[in-house]
Amino acid sequence: MPHYRAPVDDTLFLLNDVLGFHARDNLAGFTDASPDVVEAVLREGAKLAEEVLAPVNRAGDLEGCRREPDGSVRTPTGFKAAYDAYAKGGWMGLAVPVEFGGQGLPHTVNTAMQEFASGANLALGMYPGLTQGAMAALLVHGTDEQKALYLPKMVEGAWTGTMNLTEPHCGTDLGLLKTKAAPNGDGSYSLTGTKIFISAGEHDLAENIVHLVIARIEGAPAGTKGISLFVVPKFLVNPDGSLGARNGVSCGSLEHKMGIHGNSTCVMNYDGATGWLVGQENRGLNAMFVMMNEARLAVGVQGLGQSEVAYQNAVAYAKDRLQGRALTGTKAPDKAADPILVHPDVRRTLMQIRAFNEAARGLMLWTALQADILHRSEDAKERQTADDHLGLLTPVVKGVLTDRGFANAVEAQQLFGGHGYIEEWGMSQFVRDARIAMIYEGANGIQAMDLIGRKLPKDGGRAMMTFLGEVQTFVKDHGEDPAMAPFTQPLQAGLNDLQGAVMWLMQNAFAKPDNAGAGATDFMHLFGLVALGYMWARIAKAAQARNAEEASPRWEAKLTTGRFFMERMLPETGLRLVRIKAGAESTMALADEAF
Amino acid sequence: MPHYRAPVDDTLFLLNDVLGFHARDNLAGFTDASPDVVEAVLREGAKLAEEVLAPVNRAGDLEGCRREPDGSVRTPTGFKAAYDAYAKGGWMGLAVPVEFGGQGLPHTVNTAMQEFASGANLALGMYPGLTQGAMAALLVHGTDEQKALYLPKMVEGAWTGTMNLTEPHCGTDLGLLKTKAAPNGDGSYSLTGTKIFISAGEHDLAENIVHLVIARIEGAPAGTKGISLFVVPKFLVNPDGSLGARNGVSCGSLEHKMGIHGNSTCVMNYDGATGWLVGQENRGLNAMFVMMNEARLAVGVQGLGQSEVAYQNAVAYAKDRLQGRALTGTKAPDKAADPILVHPDVRRTLMQIRAFNEAARGLMLWTALQADILHRSEDAKERQTADDHLGLLTPVVKGVLTDRGFANAVEAQQLFGGHGYIEEWGMSQFVRDARIAMIYEGANGIQAMDLIGRKLPKDGGRAMMTFLGEVQTFVKDHGEDPAMAPFTQPLQAGLNDLQGAVMWLMQNAFAKPDNAGAGATDFMHLFGLVALGYMWARIAKAAQARNAEEASPRWEAKLTTGRFFMERMLPETGLRLVRIKAGAESTMALADEAF
Repeated sequence: MPHYRAPVDDTLFLLNDVLGFHARDNLAGFTDASPDVVEAVLREGAKLAEEVLAPVNRAGDLEGCRREPDGSVRTPTGFKAAYDAYAKGGWMGLAVPVEFGGQGLPHTVNTAMQEFASGANLALGMYPGLTQGAMAALLVHGTDEQKALYLPKMVEGAWTGTMNLTEPHCGTDLGLLKTKAAPNGDGSYSLTGTKIFISAGEHDLAENIVHLVIARIEGAPAGTKGISLFVVPKFLVNPDGSLGARNGVSCGSLEHKMGIHGNSTCVMNYDGATGWLVGQENRGLNAMFVMMNEARLAVGVQGLGQSEVAYQNAVAYAKDRLQGRALTGTKAPDKAADPILVHPDVRRTLMQIRAFNEAARGLMLWTALQADILHRSEDAKERQTADDHLGLLTPVVKGVLTDRGFANAVEAQQLFGGHGYIEEWGMSQFVRDARIAMIYEGANGIQAMDLIGRKLPKDGGRAMMTFLGEVQTFVKDHGEDPAMAPFTQPLQAGLNDLQGAVMWLMQNAFAKPDNAGAGATDFMHLFGLVALGYMWARIAKAAQARNAEEASPRWEAKLTTGRFFMERMLPETGLRLVRIKAGAESTMALADEAF
Repeated sequence: MPHYRAPVDDTLFLLNDVLGFHARDNLAGFTDASPDVVEAVLREGAKLAEEVLAPVNRAGDLEGCRREPDGSVRTPTGFKAAYDAYAKGGWMGLAVPVEFGGQGLPHTVNTAMQEFASGANLALGMYPGLTQGAMAALLVHGTDEQKALYLPKMVEGAWTGTMNLTEPHCGTDLGLLKTKAAPNGDGSYSLTGTKIFISAGEHDLAENIVHLVIARIEGAPAGTKGISLFVVPKFLVNPDGSLGARNGVSCGSLEHKMGIHGNSTCVMNYDGATGWLVGQENRGLNAMFVMMNEARLAVGVQGLGQSEVAYQNAVAYAKDRLQGRALTGTKAPDKAADPILVHPDVRRTLMQIRAFNEAARGLMLWTALQADILHRSEDAKERQTADDHLGLLTPVVKGVLTDRGFANAVEAQQLFGGHGYIEEWGMSQFVRDARIAMIYEGANGIQAMDLIGRKLPKDGGRAMMTFLGEVQTFVKDHGEDPAMAPFTQPLQAGLNDLQGAVMWLMQNAFAKPDNAGAGATDFMHLFGLVALGYMWARIAKAAQARNAEEASPRWEAKLTTGRFFMERMLPETGLRLVRIKAGAESTMALADEAF
């Protein structure tokens, strides 16, 4: 039976020692988030993840969701009770303003909790995850009336939310959107069309579902400039907040998926469903991007969550499974064989995953902190820098954490040998569940294109220059410290590769955009490696400081894991740079018929 | 609905133009395998794969195998008819000597057919695949009586075969084996024990099942030196070949697997089952290795098969799916959007897979040809070189073709966006099916250890020296040819990395075996990259020759795909070398408790 332990101590170390979270008392909500409070919240969240969400994960996979003939959807046994515990614990509104019933805590803390929920039970964690995304859009673009009507119920968990974007013929290219919205004359609209891949589109966890739907108002311009965002509740809501008539939206069928069986992925039919505009007419993509950026970071977090739970279970197996003897001589003479943890290739696998996880957690929390700064700082300059960081790093967090998260789940499964392929052991589920994170909220190729085509050149490359400058400053500041040399020297080499890639793109991609396209995925991973390397350098600095205070194997382990990253993982930047510089020629040369 | 087209033309080009297959007329069976015959056989095999095996692939996944209360196992609908067509077509005995009813054709041709069967329907192809492995062991180690009793029926497909190695507590470490064999006094033995993960262990495709089982004879030495191989038929066989009583072997349960649902993976219970020794007492591992080496190559072929079918379906989708516009301007103005094949990141993905597939097919056929030389040549020196090649390349073909085959299936699935995650599209099945190939017949970490710890140092590194010499000679022979420079120059760089790795290991792994263990997987992939690069260089040479005879986009496409490999894929050797040279220190430094 697979298990999950939320990485609370590591999260606290990153917040307190590495990222200077508590130096941010100038931000609204941060004064309430004292070290004690944050620790108490995270320990409580860990308990929920470990004792309530994780135990129903496998049942969710086995049983899946079931659509009844009346169009209602039943979630797997145990999901409702687990969801209720989550909602009652106040987790849904952890970072929602107090005026709507939330706790107003930093989004950074909420992000840590998202990792715990995703690691414990990805399919279940998506129901609140989507609700938080929908709340974010309403908070930014909803009218006061809409906020008052929907948010408190969503914070309670009595109602959940969804995002309705995709249609059968359009995923990435939303300009092709066909769902229509006709004005009813009373300020509401009548929506008609079909949406697919709608996560949590219909279920039995909550009494109402608040769909956020993009559609085209009759007569709107073609393409993406004619898209508007609507709120379409499953049950219409009376002005006093009580539920009215059933709206004309229903689940037509459930998709049969490779994983996340516990989440209901619906085809949603809108048959003259009543909806209300959120934000401005024809500015729906704008409003939707609030949800999407939030969701993209959350999906990156899912990649990390699956990588972490897969790692933990692989460690347990590697300590337990006896097979062969260590190359350096018997380690467990009292046993028939040594635990496979003694074998270098097993250890290499585990080191590779943990070296990723710890730095990825740092990158995730660092980026979440920028979201808090953006939304809560009173300093315009600070907000701009945070906004730059978020724009630049969001596709990296999404793309790299999910690509590597999946690959790590596969590597962890591999340690189980044949048992890894057997469903009862749970590793297959981690792999199958992790797979979706590379796809939804913009497939990772789209993230790479967003990074290289939009985020990198934006404002004359300001965000990237700031990032490069920050890393360079760190290397300079600590370059003279011999204890930091195993970290700063490789980091400098990685940074040089990243700078080399940026330079090459400036010289070669403006005139030939295919040169950017052909190198996009490699650039995203190159950037991700340097960002993770920078995290490791900062972690190492903080671990050395703690170790100087009070020596402990815990800090030594961090330094060793960081060195492993620097020696074996960061050098991949060189390969990525070679590929980018190869340009688009051989990639694009074949005629279509040759494929 | 996914489709499959067997790569016949590519296979013929590799055999005829690249590998000089028909220059081997000195070998027994090769005179019968004229170019016309080989082409006719492969076209017939392709038809079977495309029209009979592929169409039941998805049903096999959906339905899976079912164990009835009486212990019998039902295969999915359509499997029996497809299996019968395979058997009736004479495919089982394609390379089996004529005296046992086979066709005596080269194993190389059989290997090409294995790729077609694996690509069309991996789960179904395993039933004959295991039969061929069992036949190989009987051919080499069986008595004349055993051969006469079992082989003709197996060639007919009336009986199938299995390999019974794994037990619950021992997979890799067969020294821990517990299954017991007690002499009955009449030359037979009574076997008792439990075997797990037995592919095709019980099913309804054939009237008898010939289990090859390793067990420990009472009083045999502990460890691997006390293991013997037995043949244990499901039904005892009368001297006239008719079926007698049911033997004491039965399927206790079926495993619930991530994929290959159409193959019955059984827990097999031996309760005093009657078996006969195959080969010498206590030399079972020896006899088993005949099966295992055959099976390892066949599993590598499975990796390629899944990579190819995933590629073909991704190409079809990329040509069909309209989304966005080309970066260089609209390509399909009459359509709402361009097919996604125009996007560089999509093309990069497809190029990466095809650049692997074509070279991997070359490597597979080249290696299969060595098996023919080993078994059919009358020249002892030639046999030794072939044996060296087989020993050295078998773990590479198994490990690299399955690691990359799986990764390619994942990349191909990614091009489908959300549709890739939906079972109906079939890409999930390719991924789930391909996953097993990295695990069974020795997990890929074991292949890497076999390569670096056993095959590389064997006979003073003779096999590796021969390989390095052959590639170096090729580079020298064609180094002056400017048309070959895009291939020979990168190949030389890759070769230097491989030589650097061998050198480093010689200097650093004897005294510290962990240095070999920590670098094993990287070394296997480094070696694989150079072997694939060498294949590309030879393919390029042959394509240039054909293009000079008669220019065609087909040969141009090969040259472009080869350049893509050289520019973007082969340079990974540098990263692999860096990792190997990092040594074992940071990999092994953590205390067990730190994990």
